[in-house]
Amino acid sequence: MHNISYSNLQSFTKQVFLNMGCSNEHAQTASEVLLSADLRGVDSHGVARLKGYIRLWQSERVNPKPNIKIVHETPSTAVIDGDAGLGLVVAPFAMQVAMEKAEKVGTGWVSVKNSNHYGIAGYHSMLALEKDMIGWSMTNASPLVSPTFSKDRLLGTNPISIAIPTKEQPPFVADFATTTAANGKLEVLKRKGQNAPFGWVQDADGKPTQNVDALKEGGSMLPLGGDREHASHKGYILGSIVDIFSAVLSGANYGPWAPPFVSFLPLREDPVGEGLGHFLGAMRVDAFRPADDFKNHMDNWIETFRNSKTTHESDKVLIPGDPEREMTSERMTNGIPLLDAVIEDLTAVGEELNIAFKEYLKK
Amino acid sequence: MHNISYSNLQSFTKQVFLNMGCSNEHAQTASEVLLSADLRGVDSHGVARLKGYIRLWQSERVNPKPNIKIVHETPSTAVIDGDAGLGLVVAPFAMQVAMEKAEKVGTGWVSVKNSNHYGIAGYHSMLALEKDMIGWSMTNASPLVSPTFSKDRLLGTNPISIAIPTKEQPPFVADFATTTAANGKLEVLKRKGQNAPFGWVQDADGKPTQNVDALKEGGSMLPLGGDREHASHKGYILGSIVDIFSAVLSGANYGPWAPPFVSFLPLREDPVGEGLGHFLGAMRVDAFRPADDFKNHMDNWIETFRNSKTTHESDKVLIPGDPEREMTSERMTNGIPLLDAVIEDLTAVGEELNIAFKEYLKK
Repeated sequence: MHNISYSNLQSFTKQVFLNMGCSNEHAQTASEVLLSADLRGVDSHGVARLKGYIRLWQSERVNPKPNIKIVHETPSTAVIDGDAGLGLVVAPFAMQVAMEKAEKVGTGWVSVKNSNHYGIAGYHSMLALEKDMIGWSMTNASPLVSPTFSKDRLLGTNPISIAIPTKEQPPFVADFATTTAANGKLEVLKRKGQNAPFGWVQDADGKPTQNVDALKEGGSMLPLGGDREHASHKGYILGSIVDIFSAVLSGANYGPWAPPFVSFLPLREDPVGEGLGHFLGAMRVDAFRPADDFKNHMDNWIETFRNSKTTHESDKVLIPGDPEREMTSERMTNGIPLLDAVIEDLTAVGEELNIAFKEYLKK
Repeated sequence: MHNISYSNLQSFTKQVFLNMGCSNEHAQTASEVLLSADLRGVDSHGVARLKGYIRLWQSERVNPKPNIKIVHETPSTAVIDGDAGLGLVVAPFAMQVAMEKAEKVGTGWVSVKNSNHYGIAGYHSMLALEKDMIGWSMTNASPLVSPTFSKDRLLGTNPISIAIPTKEQPPFVADFATTTAANGKLEVLKRKGQNAPFGWVQDADGKPTQNVDALKEGGSMLPLGGDREHASHKGYILGSIVDIFSAVLSGANYGPWAPPFVSFLPLREDPVGEGLGHFLGAMRVDAFRPADDFKNHMDNWIETFRNSKTTHESDKVLIPGDPEREMTSERMTNGIPLLDAVIEDLTAVGEELNIAFKEYLKK
């Protein structure tokens, strides 16, 4: 374990994207989006994945110089073709289009095809906040999740993020996988030698299990709810809606056809669309009521919930975005902790692209 | 228990709304919306609630002759003032506005204030289907649900419905409360003398309980997920988003200020808005890609999920909307079963309004 400053890690990551062939602007954006995960404490989606992006580029599944373009539109909607670019740059482009449409007609909704993994959902939704807009962000992902009553892997962890502006309070920023637990939490339990709670995964026969290796042994992750008695069909619905909005609306690959993030798994030979899909949205709050009225009431909403009486489990009621905000502040001050395995990966990635990671680590 | 035909029950219900003072058009709509719950098997939201609507009208919290109007709009958005009308008629009006906007600019989004309970969410979202639009419907509701780590009742069961058009397959119709279980399911367990599973309710101290009477004893319902280990913070997020979109965007009462459905509970003396809120949306699928392309891929999506391999728990994987569709078909043929207690309520309601329910029951 070693701490590295945000600015050094961002410089290194940007250099990696530059050496992949990205433009300066794209390398800057991609590194900021990727590192927003590390800052917010979603370590599974940050630089730990950089090697994965490199492998996708090496296997020619990522185009470092994409011509991202609108292929269909109305005043409040668009479909964007990501030209097989990094989702890290395609999604911010799409969000920009959504916000421009919202500026003109109140809301903007963009479905994206032919993209790749876009980092954390919350980065993109939060772009709307500074314009007093509500931001939406969803993406489909590698199929690892079984619908209620199924043992096939048909959905990804398909996250939803919604960011809502406020006045004095910090913004309301929801960003969550539509499964009971994110994949990374299984890794954490495994390192600790602990079992998973029931409701997180099932085995290859579709039976409940606490085995943290269930996924590697042909099992699957479970939708939010975990089992039928706890309404896993609602998590299944949420994951499905993300899949349909991201991929069926745009013409990307949906369900079990969603391309896997890991480059060693083959793409399906019968695609139903192009690449991975995302869905981005922006809603001007003053398209509904004066922005100040809305933001004052959001402050009151947040204060009411935050100050409600707590159970024995915690001494405070959290507002969506609170934990990630605290983590960002801590890591901007003290640096981002990197596991030894991640340092080794980044060192190896650097060597392949003629960048000495240790220079960034020690600075 | 007694079965009654849909048409008789609808005629009776329409007469009740007419005698309350509703226009013929409103009485027709309100009775259809209310009964769509009985048809779809959501018995807790159908005629079993008719007495509740009457009590709200008697306590002057429902205006039978509302002047429903747009108070703010942009090309893709509107805020509607329901003038304290029945949500059963205010929401279809709002959905109509959303669809007209979608017709012109691709999507339409309407937040509603000063309304009342709107029946089942799914009725309203499904209005979009015949126009090849995706329909959205949400509403806030009486506060009965505690956020994760809180023991205060701050949210309603706040449902979300999304209806998505298809070609040959029946449509995808999601309609779900953002709690682990709907209130009605506790009643069913109570009648059977059974305990509730953990994760459905907590007691007044915020401790997990299986007591089906927990709500009556000052406890609260739990957000989808049930406990922190099973990600109840995600259900809390979903319920919050419904509350904010329905009530903070429109200027209705939000959170613990949401007016209770039962007329014997007092309204708060410090309202933060007007009445209850809803949020309705419509998205033209051809605002994204040709409608036929979209609908063909939706059929493929549905067939893929429906035909996936099943676990030991069921012999088929369900598509959202399947159970309600089967129930509708069964009840249109064999009639709607009414519990004796509901028959007594309807008889009493009829007597107050000079309508002989038994004439409708025996026809």
